[in-house]
This record gives sequence, structure tokens and C-alpha cells, in this order.
Amino acid sequence: MKSQFEIKNHNEIKEILDKATYGTLALCSNNIPYSVPINFVRIDDNIYFHGSKSGKKMKFIHNNSKASFSVVESYSMIQSYFSSDENLACPATHFFKSVCINGDVKIITDYKQKVKALQALMEKLQPEGLYKPLSDEVYKKMINATEVFMLKSDDIKGKIKLGQHLPKDRFDKIVKYLQNRNSDIDKKTINSMIKTKGNI
Amino acid sequence: MKSQFEIKNHNEIKEILDKATYGTLALCSNNIPYSVPINFVRIDDNIYFHGSKSGKKMKFIHNNSKASFSVVESYSMIQSYFSSDENLACPATHFFKSVCINGDVKIITDYKQKVKALQALMEKLQPEGLYKPLSDEVYKKMINATEVFMLKSDDIKGKIKLGQHLPKDRFDKIVKYLQNRNSDIDKKTINSMIKTKGNI
Repeated sequence: MKSQFEIKNHNEIKEILDKATYGTLALCSNNIPYSVPINFVRIDDNIYFHGSKSGKKMKFIHNNSKASFSVVESYSMIQSYFSSDENLACPATHFFKSVCINGDVKIITDYKQKVKALQALMEKLQPEGLYKPLSDEVYKKMINATEVFMLKSDDIKGKIKLGQHLPKDRFDKIVKYLQNRNSDIDKKTINSMIKTKGNI
Repeated sequence: MKSQFEIKNHNEIKEILDKATYGTLALCSNNIPYSVPINFVRIDDNIYFHGSKSGKKMKFIHNNSKASFSVVESYSMIQSYFSSDENLACPATHFFKSVCINGDVKIITDYKQKVKALQALMEKLQPEGLYKPLSDEVYKKMINATEVFMLKSDDIKGKIKLGQHLPKDRFDKIVKYLQNRNSDIDKKTINSMIKTKGNI
């Protein structure tokens, strides 16, 4: 992936992470990789998630704390004929935004820190509230039985591929095709294409 | 994740892979993990994808061919009050289907096999056709310059969490809340919940 796709605005990277319900965590132990989708919350550039004290995730993290985490914001499939006039398959592509974080996973042992992370996760995924705050005594046993992890970011990168670097005629042609197909994801793609093109 | 969530019907695992536009590949080299989202196509239980001959993916695969690949079919967020009567945060969850494949990545060197994989990828992502078949001479230079990979599956597992194991009253309460919220993803979730409950 060329650097022309790299996201330069750090706030946009944060936005992608905050909008995503889940991401995929890559771990490895003894050079065997393990991929696992997780719900998560971002605080600063770090990622917090939880799990069982005895699961596969925990076993891998115990052996090797290094991790790589990816989030995708998926947009339209761009069919080859949206941009090729010669019936070639090659221009077929997929528009997306993505973020990748590499770093170390720490197990959070401090009770107050665990509460803070779980509270932030709830506020992200259930912004309307309607639950007792995680600091409530009622959760004590459950929180003690839950492992809370922080992926401490050493390196965070975002990519955006929404046709922003295409020449105007190709860009406009794709927009026209998307307008014709006009599914919900196509409408969302057109808006983000125009916004991204305007920002570069 | 308990085995009650494991998908027993192998066709359902294939369906999840065939419907997904992308998945996340986990690689590792010298015990450093690397996660990267990829477009892919399934043939039998194996996954095919392509990339550059000199990219980070290629470098990792060269060092260590072991890989783990995950696909998520994301459904509704299930708010805690959909199932808790006591204002507890704990029942908050995310409904999903997912597939994880572990195995070895092979680099495909046979030209005909490369054509077959790229043709299958196009047929998946652009089922309406409208491009010259990948066997056409016109693609030769490009196909030779592209690396095509097969993740050979040693182990393939699917999970489904759509409330199928909940008692009837909790299941029905969740359906009622989703009907009230009634977004597109909620409608899709209700259909899949009922279908999954009916199959166990």
C-alpha cells in the first residue's frame, strides 16, 4: 500500500476507532499466529478490551505480549467497469478506511483502572446509559473475575482508499456509477469520497 | 467462548466466508505479529488472496508461513437493558457470526493456478461479469507481477452468537427491543436470530 493512502490527520484515525464496534487482534506464541475479533474502546492511542482469565487470548498474551490490531471501515466495492473503458478486471477494488495499531498488551491489575476501562467500553457501546456505573459495588465479584487488557500503542497508522488520488474524470465516473447503484453503502461512500477529496 | 456458540453446519461456515468482502489476516515473524485486512475468495476450505511481490505481507510470509485468518459478520449491539431487569451493565453484548481459519500460506507459482484464483476472486466480488476473463493474454504481464497466496486451512471454525441459547423469555425480550429500535441491522439481526434458534 503506497503512502498516498496514509491518513495524515490523527483525529481521523481516532474517529475510525471510535466508530468501530469491533476490530481484529493478532497475537502470536512460539511463532504461531492467532487472530481474534474483539469489542474494544480507545483511550488516547491505546485500546482496551476484556476477556476470560483462562481463555486462548490470555494464554497467547501470557507467552508473548506483542500484538497487532486492525479495524476496517468498509465502503463500496468498486467494480472494474466503474473506471476501465477496456473491459479489464484490474481496476476492481474495495474502498475502505482502516487503522492498524502495533504494540504491547498489558494486563490491568489495578481495580480502579479496570473499572475505568470497562466504564469507557460501556459508554462507547451504550451511549444512552441505563445501567449502574461500573464503580458500583454490585460489579465487584464480576470485575475481579474478568481480565482487562490494554494494547499500548507503539505505532498507529491509518489508511484511506476512497479514490482521493484518482484523476477527476475517473473519480467522477465512479461517483456516477455509485449514484446509479445507489445502495445505502454507496450513498455513504459517495459522501466520504467527496469529503476526502476535499481534504487533500 | 464456550462451545455452545460453535457452528456445527459446515455449509454455514462457507456461507459466511462467501458473503464477506474482507477478512483480517494475522501473520508473525520473529514473534512479532502483523494484522492486515484483505479481500479474499474461498475455494474449498482454503482462502486465496493477492498482493505485491515486495510488500510487508510478503516479507512476513517469507519468514513464517503460519497464518490465522478471521472474518466477522456483524449484527446488532445488544444493550444491557434488553435483557437485564436490574440495570446491570453485564448483559451488554454484540451479536455476530465469525469464522477463524488457521493454517499455512503457500505462494502460488503456477500461472494457471494464479489465473484460477484471481478469476474466482473476480467472480465473487463482481458476479455480474463485464470484464475479459483472467485467462486472456492481456493480463499476462500484470499476473506475473502479482503475488497470489493460498492460506491452506489446517483448522476452520465458526462461531455464532445470536441469542440462540438464551431462555425463551430473554430471547423474546431482545427481539422486542430490536423491533422497537428497528434499524436495518436490527431487522437483519431479528431474521438471523429466529433462523438460528430454529436450527438448534
